[in-house]
Amino acid sequence: MPEKQFEVVAIGNAIVDVLCHADEAFIQRHKLTKGAMTLIDTAQAEALYADMGPAVEVSGGSAANTIAGLASLGAKCGFIGKVKDDQLGAVYAHDLKSGGVAFTTAMAKSGPGTGRCYILVTPDAQRTMNTYLGASIELGPNDVDAKLLSNTRVLYLEGYLWDRPNAKEALRKASDIARANGAKVAFSLSDSFCVSRWRAEFRELIEQRVDILFANEAEITALYEVKQFEEAVTMVRAHVEVAALTRSENGAVIVRGQETAKVAAERIAPVVDTTGAGDLYAAGFLFGYLRGRSLETAGRMGAIAAAEVISHFGARPERPLPELMQRHLGVA
Amino acid sequence: MPEKQFEVVAIGNAIVDVLCHADEAFIQRHKLTKGAMTLIDTAQAEALYADMGPAVEVSGGSAANTIAGLASLGAKCGFIGKVKDDQLGAVYAHDLKSGGVAFTTAMAKSGPGTGRCYILVTPDAQRTMNTYLGASIELGPNDVDAKLLSNTRVLYLEGYLWDRPNAKEALRKASDIARANGAKVAFSLSDSFCVSRWRAEFRELIEQRVDILFANEAEITALYEVKQFEEAVTMVRAHVEVAALTRSENGAVIVRGQETAKVAAERIAPVVDTTGAGDLYAAGFLFGYLRGRSLETAGRMGAIAAAEVISHFGARPERPLPELMQRHLGVA
Repeated sequence: MPEKQFEVVAIGNAIVDVLCHADEAFIQRHKLTKGAMTLIDTAQAEALYADMGPAVEVSGGSAANTIAGLASLGAKCGFIGKVKDDQLGAVYAHDLKSGGVAFTTAMAKSGPGTGRCYILVTPDAQRTMNTYLGASIELGPNDVDAKLLSNTRVLYLEGYLWDRPNAKEALRKASDIARANGAKVAFSLSDSFCVSRWRAEFRELIEQRVDILFANEAEITALYEVKQFEEAVTMVRAHVEVAALTRSENGAVIVRGQETAKVAAERIAPVVDTTGAGDLYAAGFLFGYLRGRSLETAGRMGAIAAAEVISHFGARPERPLPELMQRHLGVA
Repeated sequence: MPEKQFEVVAIGNAIVDVLCHADEAFIQRHKLTKGAMTLIDTAQAEALYADMGPAVEVSGGSAANTIAGLASLGAKCGFIGKVKDDQLGAVYAHDLKSGGVAFTTAMAKSGPGTGRCYILVTPDAQRTMNTYLGASIELGPNDVDAKLLSNTRVLYLEGYLWDRPNAKEALRKASDIARANGAKVAFSLSDSFCVSRWRAEFRELIEQRVDILFANEAEITALYEVKQFEEAVTMVRAHVEVAALTRSENGAVIVRGQETAKVAAERIAPVVDTTGAGDLYAAGFLFGYLRGRSLETAGRMGAIAAAEVISHFGARPERPLPELMQRHLGVA
């Protein structure tokens, strides 16, 4: 098979993050589910924003964050996602393209504006996400760019997409094209509540189509409906080629067949905002894994990328990741 | 005279900052004036943005940053500035109002979009600012809210406003109203290039109308066309009630008549981005000064507020300033 033009192409919700600090009382007053991603409608978004403090805007979206991290590391990547042709849409497209990502999805000309995620960061650095999907709900099968998908080594999918039937159709089409052209499928479980909403479909997808799986402890135990993390680890071994399972400050467990690697979390700087930790872990790990690094090294690359993104506000890397890899790992 | 409703009302350009890291080669390639604020037009803005890396968006504008800092400290403040009725304008208004600032200037319904400042942060944490004024150019005398201005202890002006004749007229009207109602006038010299453009007018304003002056070393020596900082210090004593003159990592010199206070810079965290350092210094100092603190204490409050804002991307405080004052100074 000829060499592919892209290493990873992702499909995901295209969302601008609106981040601010908030105290626990704010979370309780608005009855938010702390640590989770909750979908909100226009009225809820307006009410929440009106009560939020001064914020900063940073391009986000789970799979897009992973792609931005991969691109920062030097991987050739593409992204499929829907923004509107408005100011925030222009910002979103800029942030991907200027990072070197191929982003060709047509912008919506009408309908709701570019999607936003209102993120409250509590003093414990935990983030509580409230997503107004906006133009992202328009993403459908017609947006699946066969040119990108037939030319990538990996197709990366985020679990959040399952919340929209139209998007689900798009990613089924995308994975058919990608797999027919020899691509592997990587999948992130996104959020434990999202797993609970789509458990049966996720299980089927993982057993039949997923090669590389990313999940945190809450997500993987929710998927298999088990209490012990170790039980989930045993189960997932049979279902995918490799699974990288993160446990926040307790590091990660990576399994490939009967092989197991345990990798500690990295300490680079104080934790300011955990938004994007999992997304950037996936970026670092995938980069190492696709370049043939050992599970341990790929795991450390994930941990270093995650440590960078939690040291500041926002889920996109602020510092060039290759420099960090060089400094902390001696490889780039 | 009855007690005023506001402590400080400011007039300034209403600008959303678009910040990204860049290397020295980028600054040279685009022939930017490092460390300065340069006005750019639509075509220049588009060309620059197209070549910039992934960025973050944070509400900015020099005087507005000072007001945001004052509001964070608990002062009752107002702001007069012009955005357009677009997505970035909504973000801008949110960030001021949610911080407790009275912001009633009518949004522009047509014409250029909300202003943006494209800020390149080099590895030395220095910022190079390129401002597309956008809707800010529409600010004029009709936007001067007499209700705000007759009700404030201090009117705060930024030097940048002199770059627009229309704005100059607005602030003349504003200072007439404010002074007729017993308010003091505070003035920030903004930028040494701005000082060079408007030296004669700034000198006249300072000698005739300004009570509280903020400048850094480059600005105050440019104003008086002297080589030595000490010469400028001697000259400014006769012209204003109090002048707070900052010297980056060398701290600040504050003079009031023959009284002099030298205050060291604060070290709170590593310096990430110096955008807003002067603006937040002014916020901290003014807060202390208006509450009757000594020059030394007011100077330290300025230094602490500046130290917070240079510890992260963006020119608005991310952490509540009263907590920092309490921790580092024992006062709030």
